Amino acid sequence: MTKKIRFAIIGAGRIGYVHAGSVSENPSAELVYVVDPFKESADKVISAFGGKYSSDPEAVINSGEVDAVIIGSPTPTHVPLLTTAIKAGVHALCEKPIDLDIKNVDALRATANSAKTNVTIGFNQRQDPHFKEVKSRVAKGEVGQVEQVVITSRDPGPAPQAYIAISGGIFRDMTIHDFDLARYFVPNIVEVSATGTNSFCDYIKEENDFDNICVVLKGANNEIVTILNSRHSAYGYDQRLEVFGDKGMLTVGNLKNTVVEYSSKDVSSAAEPLMNFFLERYAAAYRNELALFIQGISEGKVLGSTFDDGRAALILADAAHESARTGKSVKVNLN
Amino acid sequence: MTKKIRFAIIGAGRIGYVHAGSVSENPSAELVYVVDPFKESADKVISAFGGKYSSDPEAVINSGEVDAVIIGSPTPTHVPLLTTAIKAGVHALCEKPIDLDIKNVDALRATANSAKTNVTIGFNQRQDPHFKEVKSRVAKGEVGQVEQVVITSRDPGPAPQAYIAISGGIFRDMTIHDFDLARYFVPNIVEVSATGTNSFCDYIKEENDFDNICVVLKGANNEIVTILNSRHSAYGYDQRLEVFGDKGMLTVGNLKNTVVEYSSKDVSSAAEPLMNFFLERYAAAYRNELALFIQGISEGKVLGSTFDDGRAALILADAAHESARTGKSVKVNLN
Amino acid sequence: MTKKIRFAIIGAGRIGYVHAGSVSENPSAELVYVVDPFKESADKVISAFGGKYSSDPEAVINSGEVDAVIIGSPTPTHVPLLTTAIKAGVHALCEKPIDLDIKNVDALRATANSAKTNVTIGFNQRQDPHFKEVKSRVAKGEVGQVEQVVITSRDPGPAPQAYIAISGGIFRDMTIHDFDLARYFVPNIVEVSATGTNSFCDYIKEENDFDNICVVLKGANNEIVTILNSRHSAYGYDQRLEVFGDKGMLTVGNLKNTVVEYSSKDVSSAAEPLMNFFLERYAAAYRNELALFIQGISEGKVLGSTFDDGRAALILADAAHESARTGKSVKVNLN
Amino acid sequence: MTKKIRFAIIGAGRIGYVHAGSVSENPSAELVYVVDPFKESADKVISAFGGKYSSDPEAVINSGEVDAVIIGSPTPTHVPLLTTAIKAGVHALCEKPIDLDIKNVDALRATANSAKTNVTIGFNQRQDPHFKEVKSRVAKGEVGQVEQVVITSRDPGPAPQAYIAISGGIFRDMTIHDFDLARYFVPNIVEVSATGTNSFCDYIKEENDFDNICVVLKGANNEIVTILNSRHSAYGYDQRLEVFGDKGMLTVGNLKNTVVEYSSKDVSSAAEPLMNFFLERYAAAYRNELALFIQGISEGKVLGSTFDDGRAALILADAAHESARTGKSVKVNLN
Repeated sequence: MTKKIRFAIIGAGRIGYVHAGSVSENPSAELVYVVDPFKESADKVISAFGGKYSSDPEAVINSGEVDAVIIGSPTPTHVPLLTTAIKAGVHALCEKPIDLDIKNVDALRATANSAKTNVTIGFNQRQDPHFKEVKSRVAKGEVGQVEQVVITSRDPGPAPQAYIAISGGIFRDMTIHDFDLARYFVPNIVEVSATGTNSFCDYIKEENDFDNICVVLKGANNEIVTILNSRHSAYGYDQRLEVFGDKGMLTVGNLKNTVVEYSSKDVSSAAEPLMNFFLERYAAAYRNELALFIQGISEGKVLGSTFDDGRAALILADAAHESARTGKSVKVNLN
Repeated sequence: MTKKIRFAIIGAGRIGYVHAGSVSENPSAELVYVVDPFKESADKVISAFGGKYSSDPEAVINSGEVDAVIIGSPTPTHVPLLTTAIKAGVHALCEKPIDLDIKNVDALRATANSAKTNVTIGFNQRQDPHFKEVKSRVAKGEVGQVEQVVITSRDPGPAPQAYIAISGGIFRDMTIHDFDLARYFVPNIVEVSATGTNSFCDYIKEENDFDNICVVLKGANNEIVTILNSRHSAYGYDQRLEVFGDKGMLTVGNLKNTVVEYSSKDVSSAAEPLMNFFLERYAAAYRNELALFIQGISEGKVLGSTFDDGRAALILADAAHESARTGKSVKVNLN
Repeated sequence: MTKKIRFAIIGAGRIGYVHAGSVSENPSAELVYVVDPFKESADKVISAFGGKYSSDPEAVINSGEVDAVIIGSPTPTHVPLLTTAIKAGVHALCEKPIDLDIKNVDALRATANSAKTNVTIGFNQRQDPHFKEVKSRVAKGEVGQVEQVVITSRDPGPAPQAYIAISGGIFRDMTIHDFDLARYFVPNIVEVSATGTNSFCDYIKEENDFDNICVVLKGANNEIVTILNSRHSAYGYDQRLEVFGDKGMLTVGNLKNTVVEYSSKDVSSAAEPLMNFFLERYAAAYRNELALFIQGISEGKVLGSTFDDGRAALILADAAHESARTGKSVKVNLN
Repeated sequence: MTKKIRFAIIGAGRIGYVHAGSVSENPSAELVYVVDPFKESADKVISAFGGKYSSDPEAVINSGEVDAVIIGSPTPTHVPLLTTAIKAGVHALCEKPIDLDIKNVDALRATANSAKTNVTIGFNQRQDPHFKEVKSRVAKGEVGQVEQVVITSRDPGPAPQAYIAISGGIFRDMTIHDFDLARYFVPNIVEVSATGTNSFCDYIKEENDFDNICVVLKGANNEIVTILNSRHSAYGYDQRLEVFGDKGMLTVGNLKNTVVEYSSKDVSSAAEPLMNFFLERYAAAYRNELALFIQGISEGKVLGSTFDDGRAALILADAAHESARTGKSVKVNLN
């Protein structure tokens, strides 16, 4: 029997909890450490899925007790921890964004790309079964040449002001997932144009950020990608995809917990409100992401999103940030 | 230019009104007479669509002023008026049922079938664009051999007690449309089994009639047809069809006035309640029915439902009436 | 920490495999034995989920090494094994049907109902999240008084002739699930009327069985339940439910692996074919069923389908079998 | 009885044919003249709906024989004919765009807005029953404050090169309808940002025009409107609307000729391809547009799109044209 890969979870928040669950379920993985400055948070994860507690991620990475880390701690820790992990020969699955400053990302780039270990960036949506099915059917030619991609992503409600303040802005914090999903279908983006407004949330405006945005990307093969975001959605977590080509269109609609529909004097064929948020909507994607990370370790290559995918998403986010403030489209080079 | 066919509408109720509208819109038809014992009812039709008033249908049929009649007066008048029209050489489109007593129908059968004029029975659902499309695609082989047909028909609310009392019972009054629709896909029915209950309406029970029923028909080629009726439906007029064969399934869902859908904290993708009743749902079918009647007159044959279709529906209704009361399936011969 | 419940899986076929998977995933359960006369079948289960092999179910039940058994062996073994388990003080989750002969069921009835152990019958559909949601919303009054229930269940393809030959006929083998689902919404059925045909499968006809059927049940409160079955379905495993009442309707449509839809020159908004069969469609239901069985053991009561539920389904199947052959509805008493 | 309004149809192309049909059906209207330089085109309209032929629109307008004109002739004729009609005291329903040059529009503006006759611009989509229903429900507050509007409009196939050459470009020719629909929900647009590509059609590129575009509009109340266009669509005429606000979302999906759905081994619940093009999709809208024009004449005011609505759409089109070529958003003032 294959030796299990020994994992540390760094950061015991919501995402860390989800990853710990995936590790505990995966027959090739073993949860060894849960790391968080707040012992209480770590203990919740440990009591559900096991593992030892530590408050020191560097020590755990260098302990020789772990083969892989999942980095779900705050963004400013990502680059230092990735650096430590690469040096220590420890595989790393790092949550997005790599960093809020492209300079820090670029500084790590050569190291990350020449690492002997597996460095994967946590863009889970590429592992969503629905989006993967579209990708597979696009590859089979069902829509022909891709001409337009439309991504709708609306969160159920805004993050708290304290989070917004350090988030790097909606493009780097929220749209960044959609930038990666856009590149799943149109890898080579050459131009970014963004529009942002303040429609409903005073504290987002105070932080000089937007609560509703639309980004339009141009691809190298004349594709147009449109991304629509809102920081709130009355009917739940709205996640849709449309890929339009010269032979047809493939779409992914929203998921609900059940397929029950209701008809009465007021409505007909009414579905229930959407799944609440990403943990529910992308539960399978998170599991697949971990499985692919593990498979990548055994195959010696990155099967999920690469470091350069993470870098590309940040470049697009930076460009959108600039475009929304200047009213000018921004040319980008993702190479 | 072709001479217009001169019509009399006999019976100025809801159905008469609809037919008068179709006549007035049809470029090959002309509304000459509106006949009803109640002048007030006739005047409503006349003021909307024109025509002269008469209270005497026999006189109008024999006046030489009309080429065709649409008989939408009460059921007991159907056989006498059809008889008069056939003798007078006047074409007749007669609402269902031909009569509540199969003996009266059989007495007229030879005359009707050898008539030189066009005798059409008003089963409009065969002219519904949606059902016709299914028929056409079944004929192309899209479902292969038909094995099951499921017809759901639920009225928005029960007719008044006075109507129920003289209706001949739910099978002869309401299901009769579904019997004809069943025969659109499975013409040769050989056995009938019916179940009826009294679920909600006291006065229907008082009239010794049912308010909810299910009828199962067996076809000569081993098809099973299931008909579900209710005398009420909270969400509007529920009209659905499913045709299942060895290669696939074709369905017709419900129609709404618009395709608008709503999502909120309580529902997602909620359509509006269904179209209220048959005048709205089958508006196109009524127009097509008249057009086909007129085309049939010019081609010298019945293109819609024939007298024998009307007779077959009544035989099935009688069998269902008996089966629901005896608990025994009833063999039928529609020839 | 609570001691884990030690399970034996009896019968290592498809169903046994699924149950073994559920046991291995459930944190309160432990897979101790896999029992099957064919070691090869058992070994597949063991290599996937662990456990020891035995060919002797009686010995395993009496070994003192197991707290609970899941009986998924052929139907004739159900009553003997249930008897053994009850005597041995071992909890039992037994697949449907309890037996093909109601006399054998009745002979065990008093013993089963007075058992100190948990005796649960494996009607998993009551544990399906979609059907449970309908049940819960019916209980809240969303459809008002239930008047009609429509259950559609079509298998992707017919079982082999050898299986059909010993299946007890379509009503006892296939419809039996739908009888139990019917009773989930209308527990007290008083009359059964059934129609069967031979539409497509010669060997089913040779076995004097039907390949397409429709059953109509009458409830004690004037409900009508209609069940439609086919032994094949070109578009996959067709599983639908409709509950209609005086205030509205709740439906469960079919599930697909993804929500992807396709539009091209030939179709619009086309979903993929349905999930292939029960293992996929009811995966969650099987897991829930085991969880509920375990919860029932700890609470000292049957939370899933009871022995009497299993008996009721067989009585309904027997009545349908008779009705389809005599053309007469059959009154039943489920008490 | 009211005197019928006497109409001349100017321009006997597809649009002229449709309007002539609406006039002939409308009980308050009478088709007197059909005007076109090509007698053959006019004769097709005349033989279907009646009227006299003329090749001289100015003469017809000044003949005293018509009360109203519908101007469906080529764009360069719109301003001169509107001018003539206003002077002659003849009501005018003029197809979009008013002109390709905003200077010509502005030159007519004061005259048009002070005209004693009814000057209506033919943006029929505001009269579509589906879009109107959304408008009405937005007005009732069902989505709360409007934050995002998404309009998808894809033609089945590109117009011929000769048409493209004189069309004024995709924004002025095709998107112009969407600009008006955008303003139905967000009247006051303040900024325009557009992206265009050449994805599939060489001759559109030769004409220095785009075949796929995305326009983002910012509203004065921080609304974001996104418009997606393509000059082709494999699955038919794609026309969708989404209005998103803080309380919910209303959408209009595509219409098909029937609601028939098909399931087979390859697909499930597949609808037929979409209605082919605008004449089918917006048939009701065209009828309503004429009815509203007539009602407006009798009420002495413009009930459909005003001259200034037509001007606003052109300003937005000009801004999009500029933005797509400069990569800069363009501020606009619609007053």
